[in-house]
Amino acid sequence: MKRKITLKQIARELDVSISTVSKALRNSKEISEDTRQKVQAFAKLYNYRPNNIALSLKNRKTKTIGIIIPEIVHHFFSKVIRGIELVANKRGYNVIVGLSNESFDKEVINMEMLANGSIDGFILSISKETLLQQDYHHFYETINQGMPIVMFDRVVNEVNCDKVIVDDLKGSKKAVEQLIANGCKNIAIITTKDYVSVGRLRTQGYLEALEENKMEPQSELILKIVEELDSEDHLEDLEAEIEQLLVNNKKIDGVFAVNELYALTAMKVARRLKKKIPEQLQVIGFTDGVLSKHATPSLTTVSQHAEEMGKKAAELLINKLENEDEEEYFETHIIETEIIKRESTK
Amino acid sequence: MKRKITLKQIARELDVSISTVSKALRNSKEISEDTRQKVQAFAKLYNYRPNNIALSLKNRKTKTIGIIIPEIVHHFFSKVIRGIELVANKRGYNVIVGLSNESFDKEVINMEMLANGSIDGFILSISKETLLQQDYHHFYETINQGMPIVMFDRVVNEVNCDKVIVDDLKGSKKAVEQLIANGCKNIAIITTKDYVSVGRLRTQGYLEALEENKMEPQSELILKIVEELDSEDHLEDLEAEIEQLLVNNKKIDGVFAVNELYALTAMKVARRLKKKIPEQLQVIGFTDGVLSKHATPSLTTVSQHAEEMGKKAAELLINKLENEDEEEYFETHIIETEIIKRESTK
Repeated sequence: MKRKITLKQIARELDVSISTVSKALRNSKEISEDTRQKVQAFAKLYNYRPNNIALSLKNRKTKTIGIIIPEIVHHFFSKVIRGIELVANKRGYNVIVGLSNESFDKEVINMEMLANGSIDGFILSISKETLLQQDYHHFYETINQGMPIVMFDRVVNEVNCDKVIVDDLKGSKKAVEQLIANGCKNIAIITTKDYVSVGRLRTQGYLEALEENKMEPQSELILKIVEELDSEDHLEDLEAEIEQLLVNNKKIDGVFAVNELYALTAMKVARRLKKKIPEQLQVIGFTDGVLSKHATPSLTTVSQHAEEMGKKAAELLINKLENEDEEEYFETHIIETEIIKRESTK
Repeated sequence: MKRKITLKQIARELDVSISTVSKALRNSKEISEDTRQKVQAFAKLYNYRPNNIALSLKNRKTKTIGIIIPEIVHHFFSKVIRGIELVANKRGYNVIVGLSNESFDKEVINMEMLANGSIDGFILSISKETLLQQDYHHFYETINQGMPIVMFDRVVNEVNCDKVIVDDLKGSKKAVEQLIANGCKNIAIITTKDYVSVGRLRTQGYLEALEENKMEPQSELILKIVEELDSEDHLEDLEAEIEQLLVNNKKIDGVFAVNELYALTAMKVARRLKKKIPEQLQVIGFTDGVLSKHATPSLTTVSQHAEEMGKKAAELLINKLENEDEEEYFETHIIETEIIKRESTK
């Protein structure tokens, strides 16, 4: 049996990136004519086909769901997986997890590998790099060949598939409204760069809440963290940025942070600056993390209901897998957020 | 192409457990003659073979490592996976994760599925149920057919393969010695039932430290938690057990807990009982968890160096994969533990 060549192998053989191969195969103008020809010739020579999904699908059901997540050291994603597992196990499915590590290449490699006969469908959350590059061909190809995808949390409108999201905008709005109701006059937001859809939406919720309450947004109170600081290994740099925000703007009396790490770091910095929480500074995070509950003071958060999200994603996928002859119809299920009040707010 | 039948399918077809099928195929006396005959006949009819490893191994390298862990919502395991990934990526390997959920059946299913051509070798930590049943046939079969396994953390002596462990006994001993050096006279241990090797060894370290310091072990100070309470969903029951320990033994001035959950719960209960930490009660945990660092007071722990453990496991596996013609030789690598002093001890 002749082996199929993969994107990864083409890339290695020609010493270019997977992204380049992918674009060259789609004749993207971003890639030089020379490289495009080289890649296309090579792919033809080795009989490259996007993947083997169509083949395997006709012959068998694996009763396995492939999950692709950006990161494993992350309570939110683990909780989603637990939710997926609960439903999957109940309905006789097994799950297997691939990690993109926020990398486009790894996302493509993992999908290619799993789609190659190991699984019946995907549940995934898109990597930051993919969102930044806006290259979604691997999703299109997978779906076009009949393998269903359900996206959760980090999704894109461009791709037509079932999605499970939290209402990031409304959730953030609720959080900021809570701070306003608690008497905060100068509310800062600690958020991500805009290309992470979740961060963008949460920032938007913050702005809408201010606007509807006739409070002028102040650009110096909006701190957008670069993704590089977004890990446990760069805590000190993150602390420095947040410290600057709080030192340069002593009037800040409320902080809305779009994730747990930012929120807890803000509390830590505030403690160092002798700002009393919640008396002088109130903090709300956006997360289901364990740290929030155990922190001192414990953190008021917008709960994302991660486990519920996973359950819903599994239901959507398995329903699709078991009702193949139905009309094509895609659903975007919105999980309602909820504010869990703890000690970091009045 | 005729499909291979799996253990899971045989079990479903005959309406017995996977464990029963597995034992029946090995002619175990635990299984009735009748069932053994039925299973064996069925397996023969459908041409069951333990799995397809041998076949796939000859033909290809997947450059993928299969990881099987008992639990995903667990910082220790995520950190190990991160360590595995770091080394795997550097050496051109991908990783894929299967979850046993502490279940023997799921461990077998996942290994069977992944071994079926998706991966080159396994890195795994054994499920509690497997340890309890002491049924290791799936490991033997995998190894016998030439697919290497590296076990980490929860390992068994019976299986001949590379292993990476922390020195649980020595680590616990160090922790208890620290409590003794800090003046504790009545040290309790909160541990697991003995069939979890890690718990057993840590209990032994506790006993040795007491003995060498001429302190009489007191059975009422040894609390062995049943596994059912070992999850976030049963926090209240766990709290009740620990509260009883502390209330019934007011003399306790030191607690050594074999994991983070037990340690933090002990601190929580102590706070509720108005015991001052570390003045009246000193606590040491055994973990690399994030909660320890962020808890108030922050928790003194025995660090397991989870990431290093993952790195070492990946090195051992990839070395084995890339040096096939070498003599068979198995290594047990011991990761040294280290006490990280924080605020929960004097």
